[in-house]
Order: sequence, then C-alpha cells, then structure tokens
Amino acid sequence: MTDAPVDILIRNGRVLTMDPNQAEIPDGAVAIQGDHIAAVGATASIGTRSARKVIDADGGIIMPGLVNTHTHAAMTLFRGLADDVPLMSWLTDHIFPAEADLDHRKVYCGALLACAEMILSGTTTFCDMYLFEDAVARAARTAGMRAVVGEVLFDFPSPHYGPLERGFAYTATLIETYRRDPLITVAVEPHSPYLCAPELLQRAFELAARHRLPMVIHLAETESEVQTLRQRYGRTPVEHLETLGVLAPNVLACHCVQLSAADIERLQRCGVKVSHNPESNMKLASGIAPVPEMMAAGVCVGLGTDGAASNNNLDLFLEMDTAAKLHKVHRLDPTVMNAGAVLRMATSEGAKALGLGERVGSLETGKLADVILVDTRRPHLTPLYHPASQLVYAAKGSDVTTAIINGRVVMENGRILTFDVQQAMDEVNAIARQMGRRG
Amino acid sequence: MTDAPVDILIRNGRVLTMDPNQAEIPDGAVAIQGDHIAAVGATASIGTRSARKVIDADGGIIMPGLVNTHTHAAMTLFRGLADDVPLMSWLTDHIFPAEADLDHRKVYCGALLACAEMILSGTTTFCDMYLFEDAVARAARTAGMRAVVGEVLFDFPSPHYGPLERGFAYTATLIETYRRDPLITVAVEPHSPYLCAPELLQRAFELAARHRLPMVIHLAETESEVQTLRQRYGRTPVEHLETLGVLAPNVLACHCVQLSAADIERLQRCGVKVSHNPESNMKLASGIAPVPEMMAAGVCVGLGTDGAASNNNLDLFLEMDTAAKLHKVHRLDPTVMNAGAVLRMATSEGAKALGLGERVGSLETGKLADVILVDTRRPHLTPLYHPASQLVYAAKGSDVTTAIINGRVVMENGRILTFDVQQAMDEVNAIARQMGRRG
Repeated sequence: MTDAPVDILIRNGRVLTMDPNQAEIPDGAVAIQGDHIAAVGATASIGTRSARKVIDADGGIIMPGLVNTHTHAAMTLFRGLADDVPLMSWLTDHIFPAEADLDHRKVYCGALLACAEMILSGTTTFCDMYLFEDAVARAARTAGMRAVVGEVLFDFPSPHYGPLERGFAYTATLIETYRRDPLITVAVEPHSPYLCAPELLQRAFELAARHRLPMVIHLAETESEVQTLRQRYGRTPVEHLETLGVLAPNVLACHCVQLSAADIERLQRCGVKVSHNPESNMKLASGIAPVPEMMAAGVCVGLGTDGAASNNNLDLFLEMDTAAKLHKVHRLDPTVMNAGAVLRMATSEGAKALGLGERVGSLETGKLADVILVDTRRPHLTPLYHPASQLVYAAKGSDVTTAIINGRVVMENGRILTFDVQQAMDEVNAIARQMGRRG
Repeated sequence: MTDAPVDILIRNGRVLTMDPNQAEIPDGAVAIQGDHIAAVGATASIGTRSARKVIDADGGIIMPGLVNTHTHAAMTLFRGLADDVPLMSWLTDHIFPAEADLDHRKVYCGALLACAEMILSGTTTFCDMYLFEDAVARAARTAGMRAVVGEVLFDFPSPHYGPLERGFAYTATLIETYRRDPLITVAVEPHSPYLCAPELLQRAFELAARHRLPMVIHLAETESEVQTLRQRYGRTPVEHLETLGVLAPNVLACHCVQLSAADIERLQRCGVKVSHNPESNMKLASGIAPVPEMMAAGVCVGLGTDGAASNNNLDLFLEMDTAAKLHKVHRLDPTVMNAGAVLRMATSEGAKALGLGERVGSLETGKLADVILVDTRRPHLTPLYHPASQLVYAAKGSDVTTAIINGRVVMENGRILTFDVQQAMDEVNAIARQMGRRG
C-alpha cells in the first residue's frame, strides 16, 4: 500500500544506486522501512510518499554507504606514533610494544574513535582484524555500524588470549555471541601464511566453513613474505594456501601485493575475494598490487584503508582517489581503474568481498538501508559533470553529511547521533598520553 | 613598545614555524601588525599582548599558509569534464575545444572558485599559468590571495591574445599593472620546450631577467616530450634549455618527471626551482618524478596540484599525503620523503621556488603574515603524537578553519570573508551548463 507512511524518505537528490546496471536517477528518492530499503525511484514518483522522517538531499548525491574491507580499527590509538621508519623497526620498536599494553577497554576506545571517523567520512561497514575483537564488535554496536570482526590468530602467544587454543575458543564464543546480530558478522581470521602454521590455517578454514562465515587473512603483502614462504614451503603464499586447500569463495585475502600471474589465476579459480589497500602499501613501501590484472581476470576486489597507524586515516574517499591514480601511473595508462570501477570497489564489490553482497553495497529495494548523502554544493565539488568522477577524484570524506545504517540515522548534518564523539576523543587522548609516557 | 596593541593576536596553539630550525612552540602565539608578523613566541610571553582582534587557536596548529607552486586556476571550469581518457584525447577532444570558448569573465569566475577552494583548504599563495591571466590576478585580489600569475606563451595563436607578439605585449602590460601590488607577482610563462621555439624561450627568459621576475615553464612532463625534443634538437628538454641559456635561479620548472641523472645535475647547477605535481602526473599517467634524487642533489622542490581538470582538486593537504607515499612505494623505502620534508615542500620550499622565500613560507618576525589554523580536535586527527605526521598523513584541507593572508583574515571558522562563495559557485555552474550543452 503506497499510502502507508515509511520510516524515512530521502528525496531531491541524485541517486547513484550502484546496482548491477549502475542506474542513476538525476532527481531521485529512497524510501526506508525498518532496516531495509522500501523503494528507490524518481522524486516525482516515490518522493511524495508520507514518511515519519523526511530528509532533503538538496540536490546532493544519495548513494550506498562505503565498505571498508580491511581495518585494524583500534590502531587509531597508534595513529602517527611512528612514521617514515623501516617496516621492521615500525613493528618491533613501536607497534608490538604498544600492543603488549592493550586491553579490552583500550581496544573499545580506539575502535569507537575509528567508528566516528569512518561514519563521518561515509563508511557504513568495515571488516576488522585485531585483538580483543569483542570490544570492536561492541564499539561498532554502540556506533550503529555494520562490521565483520575476527580475532587475529597466529602461532605465537597473543597479548590478548595467550596460547592459540584460547584464540580458537575466543573465536567460537564470538561466533556464538553474534550469531543473530543485525550488525555484526564474525569471521575467522588467521593472520597470514608466514605467521600461521599449516594446521592453524586448515583448522581456521574448517571453522569458517562449518559456520558459513568468512575467513580473513593477510596474503602476499610483501616481497619478504614471498621469500619466507619460498624458503619454508617452496611455494608462493597463494600457492601454499591452495595446496593446503584453504582457498574458497568465503576467503578474503588482504593486500595481495606480490602476486605472480599464476597466483592471480589461482585466486580467480578458487573464487577468493581480495581487499586492496593502496595507501598502506605505499606508506609501508610494500609495493603496488596488480589490481587491474586481478579485475581483468574476474577477481572480486574491494577497497580497504588498513589500520590508521599505516595510512594514517580511514577515509575511503581519499583511498578511492589514490587507487584510481596509483594504477594509472604504475601502468602508464590513464584509462585503467576508471572512476566507476573504483566506486564499485568501495561499495558493491566491497560488500561482495565480505559475503554481504546480497544485503548491502547498493541501493535496491529489499536490501538493508545503508545510505549516505554527499553535499555537492561546495567549491571543490563545483561544477559537477559526472558524479562518479567527482566522488573519486574531487570529494573527501568531509563532504558526507548524513549516514544511515540498517535503517537508523547515525549521522545527520555532520553530527554523529549514536554516541558522544568528544568523549571518545578524550578517552583516546588519555590512553595516548599514557603510551607517550611509557614510550 | 610591547604594550602597543597589535592588529591580530593568535594564541593558544601549537606553532609550527617552518623556519630554518623547524622550531615548534607547544603553546604558542603569533602577533600580526599590518601586513607582517610582529612576533612569534610562547603564549605565556607574547600571548598577553593587547590586540584589536584575538583569535583563540584552541590547542590547534598555527602554521604558515600553504604554497601551491603550479595551478591553472580557471580550469576548475573543467573539473571532471573528461577523466580516465588517453592524454591526447583529453587535450584535443575535451580541453582545447572548451578553452576555445574562454573569455576574461569565464576565467575570472573559474579562478575565483579556485581561490575559494584553495583558501578553504589552507593555501594562501598560488602560482598560475593560463589564458587571460589578468582575470586570474583580479580574482586573487578579490579573494585576498597571494599569487604569481603569467600569461601562457607558445608558438601557435592563443585563444586569448592571438599571435605571439600580442602575448608578449599582454605580459608587458601585466608586469606594468602589478608592479607594486602587495599580493600579485607577474611571471613570464612560456608553455614548454615542445610548444615554444628557441627564440620564444630566449625572449621570455630575457624579459623575466630584465624585470627580475620568475620564468615559469612546464618541463620534462612526459616521455613523449622527451622523444620530441630528442628528435627536434638531439637533446633532453633540460639539456635543450641549458644550451639556450635559459636555466637560472629565477626559473620554476613544473613537473620534471622524465629526468636523467645529468638533467638533475643541470637543474642543481643552474639553481632552477622545481614544482612537483604528483597527483596530476599519476592521473595523466605521465610518470613519477625523481624527487628524492632532486632533493638529495640540493634542488629546491615545491609542491603543486596542477589544474583541477587533471587532479581533480586543489587540496594541498591531500597532495602532501600522496607525495609522501608515492615515492616510498616507488623506491620501496618507507623512509624517503618523510613528513617534515613534505611539509617544507608545501610551505618554505614552495615559497623559495616562487622567489618569495624571503617574504612568506614560514612564521618569522618581519615576514608577511600568511597564517592558517588547523583544528586538530577531530576524530581523524586524534590522538596527536607528531604534528608534521598528522598534517601530512591524516589531515585534509577541510580541517583548516582560519586563513590570514598579508595580515587580513580571509577565512574564519570555515567561512570565506572576502567574497560571496555561493555566487562564485552559481556563476561557474552556469558556465558549465553552457559548455555541457555545446559539448
């Protein structure tokens, strides 16, 4: 019955649906009922429906919320702690010592600050790997964000759970706790082929498969990883995982910088999803992932920022810009990674990469309502010839004014409604001062 | 007399002076008298002086305004008109036809919009090359921005002035008009060695030398330029200019992507300044300039965005981030182009590159008062361990709240005070609609 009032009606905007046809509606509207999208269409047709809350997009862009496929959210605590240093010094002299001091509360505070930053810059879903992941899930719920969370597993004792066995037990508890959560999906997350023995990887894979959950792993991030795997197993990292039988469509491989042509073919054949993290790979000097080649081979590639300690922000608009430009100069071809393809990486492809493609990543009737508004009436977004181009090459996260996640308005006019951002900043500042004293 | 009131007192901020010692003042203040800086020091010492206007930095960062060493400001008109296309198609199918329709008013409108974007993102000085540059100078004066302007000169007839002879006459008039202007410096600007005959280059160089003005030129931007010069003159672009005797300390060479080791040595020996434009070079797939090598050789390198049609924004904070990261991944070394070096490129080195090093680019007593405030109490700038790191890797132009140029507050609390930004956007939108109809 079209006359029944919907919960939220957004109208008078340029709708980028990011649906399979890349449909755009020049003067469009989105109707939201409960947690899902009830209708998408012209303002002239559905924009007149009655609604409990009406949001005027004022001619701006209405689009799906962005999907950040690789984060270590709580690492906002270490944002800028140590930059411009060699990777091993960064890890062993700065990050590992700082992480040894973490606890549930600190991770919660760091992750909540990350949620603030992500919501304010248009991200509505993130996929996280870290320690104390229950704290990350709680932060995401406080913020009203959608998240895939997973406790990182590796061969050596964790600063959180201690021996590996307890890491698997913790993961099992996470799976149980969030089994029916509307926002949280749990993933099984072995760190990487170089920090995880074959048995760990296979056990993690089986656990994920048994519960039909994603398995998230760092893969082929650096040349040194490739060398290590060659020495240890005589295989490339991707080849090693394939040999172990742990490559499948529910696997999200993060980074994938150092790949052979055969590795790309393996990823495609096994249906593995990839998270591309260009800014982190640049900053840590890991290399440039062969993303145009993966996309040409039909691999699903999403976009991610990695942690704030190696970026140093979580703004996916800036990451889109970098992704589009980096591959152009690397291949000396200005036509690769066009704006439309990059925008899909940050929305619909990212959602698919997390196994959430049926639920979010585009504005389509029946999908969950994760929607953002971009104010285009700003000098740096004027004039506006092509929306996708503008979003990728000219916009920044600070142009997002409103965010709706799972049908709930979590930010409006640049103000987060779900929690006290000032308090979140104060708490992180206090933790950082402690760390500064110790360091 | 310390008791006499100053015009403006900014206090309670973390002052990054960018002076030769890179002095930082944790709780500092800057006093401004007329167009210049009267004092820089601790809030406890100079922050108690009486002032006609007091600005509380609220714990944020007080720093010199950024210097954009290469723009085509009016190309905001073509922002996003044609992206992801081959360079020659971009120029001949899109940009050149659009430029054929330009006039003084359109260039003024485009340049004024660029000024809005630049001020809002912390830039206080820009160096422009385009057509109808008198309109750019007028836009800069309306906005209250500092600018180096120069009419582009090349062998073929200009859509503005027609035959080259009139280009030189126009340049001479510009020089006369702005001879004593407090904000505008005129430069002589031959386009490039591939579009300018040797006689043009030498005449331009002599004109600049005679008036002690900068000469600005595109140089070694693409591999195709290098090939053209080799075929035509049997020399690299830099070698060609040196042979012509037109390399000197007042020359600003933009891009400098395709350089041999001998070219770098030539630039250093002749004291040529360089404008580095990483995002444009990436987007147009021109290549990666050997900036770490140039800096190691002692060449002065500033940062620039190039025009909005090949970037597609004029935000130097984003350009700093890209510059720092791009060279790390290109050299596979995370220690090159550290945050401090990149921040100097965008401030003190940029000012030197424009021949304004004695006047702006750092906060020092007696220098002209070009000052910006960055609000660091934001989620993506929390916590704050190292200011330079935060500015380069985490901040964006939208974090700048206040801008002072030549002692005049041109933006306060994110609002431009010198002109009507909405009207500037409206006029550019109207021009863009016309172009859209024609295209």
